[in-house]
Amino acid sequence: MSSYGRYHSQSYAPSAPSLPGSGYGQVSSSSGYTSFPPGTHPDVIRSFQAVDRDRSGFIDEKELQQALSSGFQKFDLRTIRLLMFLFKNPNEPLRIGPQEFAALWSCLGHWRAIFERYDKDRSGKIDPLELRDALYGIGYAVPASVLQLLISKYGDGSGRRVELGFDSFVECGMILKGLTDKFKEKDTRYTGSATLSYDTFMSMVIPFLVSYD
Amino acid sequence: MSSYGRYHSQSYAPSAPSLPGSGYGQVSSSSGYTSFPPGTHPDVIRSFQAVDRDRSGFIDEKELQQALSSGFQKFDLRTIRLLMFLFKNPNEPLRIGPQEFAALWSCLGHWRAIFERYDKDRSGKIDPLELRDALYGIGYAVPASVLQLLISKYGDGSGRRVELGFDSFVECGMILKGLTDKFKEKDTRYTGSATLSYDTFMSMVIPFLVSYD
Repeated sequence: MSSYGRYHSQSYAPSAPSLPGSGYGQVSSSSGYTSFPPGTHPDVIRSFQAVDRDRSGFIDEKELQQALSSGFQKFDLRTIRLLMFLFKNPNEPLRIGPQEFAALWSCLGHWRAIFERYDKDRSGKIDPLELRDALYGIGYAVPASVLQLLISKYGDGSGRRVELGFDSFVECGMILKGLTDKFKEKDTRYTGSATLSYDTFMSMVIPFLVSYD
Repeated sequence: MSSYGRYHSQSYAPSAPSLPGSGYGQVSSSSGYTSFPPGTHPDVIRSFQAVDRDRSGFIDEKELQQALSSGFQKFDLRTIRLLMFLFKNPNEPLRIGPQEFAALWSCLGHWRAIFERYDKDRSGKIDPLELRDALYGIGYAVPASVLQLLISKYGDGSGRRVELGFDSFVECGMILKGLTDKFKEKDTRYTGSATLSYDTFMSMVIPFLVSYD
């Protein structure tokens, strides 16, 4: 039995029926504008359309930041860039369409619910132990050493106890879940280890590196 | 034979005799101030001491940014944060001492020389093909697909041809070299693949994720 615990299909939502990523995003033949999945909440559509001023059917980073702020909060552009990379169609440049946007919105809603469940004192911050519990709650038993290493990247370097706002919580959560899922895809017998070629290893990791121009 | 080519010892310098990271940083018994390695250029010592105003023997991110700007350029804080994580003593908080600073300075000097060698038109920018040649020149045959994936993270998302300034070049170079070296440590027989436990995989990757508080 591997150490990372229960198994979910690959997705950046804490638990999600739908798969963001490749394999969707069909273009309607008439307008070239991909459509929202059936049942998408009107607020989500409105948020997207409010920023897609040229009706191109795609929004860029800054527009995504603005669109998400209507439902969640103003995410740092660093977080936006990561979300963009995790959700955009891999064959597209840095922009996302309605389907990806709806998947991202839904995913953030799941993480928001978890954040609120584990932020017991309603401080708007989650500490590393609460993050561990939150991850465990969705089926990811991340080793303390791994969590410690990641958490050490947040904080001011003073060694003071790190607390994560929703922004960093989403980042940590999606990175841990995303990397774990990718690893599990290669660990088909759930042994807790996997044999990876160099190319596979690099391709698994690079999407999680955040960069700006 | 693995696809990544010739072999160097782990270090973020393109080719380096000394190892930054753990295992050094002895504290002089009298002052508690770690010292510079013998032969360190006086400019390097001056750059460090100019920003270490409280003579603590350690500098933080902002001070590192300032210190490096005297010898190189003003690096983005994102790059500084990555350099900090790659060079600091893993047991220390987010700060670096004289030994790590000297190793980092020397490493950047190596990358600078490579950058200048491959920036043939002296534009101050390197394109993806030049980056590939530069990496090949120091013994890293990075597959085009991997390079493409990384390069796609730089640029404005317009799909225009990406050119890397020294800042991004150093980042790309250290990430590719660092991850490749870590992988090769596990691929002891140079087969081009390695068996990794989940904990090892995560611990290899997380240091290269850049985060801010």
